[in-house]
Amino acid sequence: MTDSVKLIKVRESIQADNEQHAQDLRQKLKACKTLLINIMSSPGAGKTSLLLQTTSRLKDEYSMAVIEADIDSTVDAERLAHSGVEAIQLRTGGFCHLDVPMVQQGLDSLDTDVLDLIFIENVGNLVCPAEFDTGAALDVMILSVPEGDDKPLKYPLMFSKCDALIINKIDYLGTSLTDFDLKLLEKRVRKLNGRIRIFPLSSRTGEGIDIWTDWLTNKAADHNK
Amino acid sequence: MTDSVKLIKVRESIQADNEQHAQDLRQKLKACKTLLINIMSSPGAGKTSLLLQTTSRLKDEYSMAVIEADIDSTVDAERLAHSGVEAIQLRTGGFCHLDVPMVQQGLDSLDTDVLDLIFIENVGNLVCPAEFDTGAALDVMILSVPEGDDKPLKYPLMFSKCDALIINKIDYLGTSLTDFDLKLLEKRVRKLNGRIRIFPLSSRTGEGIDIWTDWLTNKAADHNK
Repeated sequence: MTDSVKLIKVRESIQADNEQHAQDLRQKLKACKTLLINIMSSPGAGKTSLLLQTTSRLKDEYSMAVIEADIDSTVDAERLAHSGVEAIQLRTGGFCHLDVPMVQQGLDSLDTDVLDLIFIENVGNLVCPAEFDTGAALDVMILSVPEGDDKPLKYPLMFSKCDALIINKIDYLGTSLTDFDLKLLEKRVRKLNGRIRIFPLSSRTGEGIDIWTDWLTNKAADHNK
Repeated sequence: MTDSVKLIKVRESIQADNEQHAQDLRQKLKACKTLLINIMSSPGAGKTSLLLQTTSRLKDEYSMAVIEADIDSTVDAERLAHSGVEAIQLRTGGFCHLDVPMVQQGLDSLDTDVLDLIFIENVGNLVCPAEFDTGAALDVMILSVPEGDDKPLKYPLMFSKCDALIINKIDYLGTSLTDFDLKLLEKRVRKLNGRIRIFPLSSRTGEGIDIWTDWLTNKAADHNK
């Protein structure tokens, strides 16, 4: 296991540097009244669909942009740009997460002085993005119903660090396709994170989106005042 | 981006060592007629359910075991052990993938001389496990219908390296819940990997499982003769 130990040491030093960069970035964005929100989930849980619903509902109220991270491809950024949202594509070139220098590259292409909300769509992954602070003021994760209610047991760090948990695809509940137990899921999540806000919704049908955007609006008002 | 460059260099050297370990392990397992199969997917795509279906159908024919990798928890290993399959739990302690030394730790607890098939249930992640050879003779990935048909565009390496692709949860097809296009998905996958075998199935209903286990049986016969 010598290889693994070597890797851990390097990662620890990178994380310590990253932690400092993250705090600096948070202060800077607070000063220019821009709320940075980091969205994380497994592949296919619905990050882009949630962003489309969210930006569509808040577009008259806020100036917004999205930083899209992908190993490859530009399909998500194109979907967002097509909907009228300013979208910056970051190709991580194999990296499994974003760190602050990568987010900063995205921010360099945006005018933070005029933007109220900037969303980061992190790489689809429940493991690595949980370990790296992006400098965001809010960390939000999405769990979709078809993934199952046992995920807090398997990926505890992600559930522990987030400010909000979106439970997406609730239109799958109550079908014979899944035995997802919303109450059991919430109990497992609360055990890891007493302060997390939970928003069951469906980005496909729109159900529950307003409760999430109301919360976000309040957070933005607090942060950007 | 200095931090990131530092990380890449270390990973490259680790990967070169790992490559050699993987080839050595493959030769060793070939000599003792044990087929090692590496199963990868996003969280919640159905790795454990597929293993339960597969081992249940092949239990009279083969001696089998499962090496379970999890960041935390033992729930999957317990489900398998409960079904009568020998299961070894590896806790990766935050690592987002398995490499050969970690797999070897699992194998050290198993009697490879008597086992015909050993399955690795890798960490739920479409990014990192694609980059690290485990020493398995077969790499198999699972994509579940609710994740969407655009995943080959976003995680091309995983689709490029696998011998087989299981499309799980096909019982979701044809409902109003998803617009997953199986033909389009297959076209996108074939563009990345001309040799991959694709098995649409449902671990929940059992539909399509036999075609997958027949293929696996043939692969085992070739490998272990």
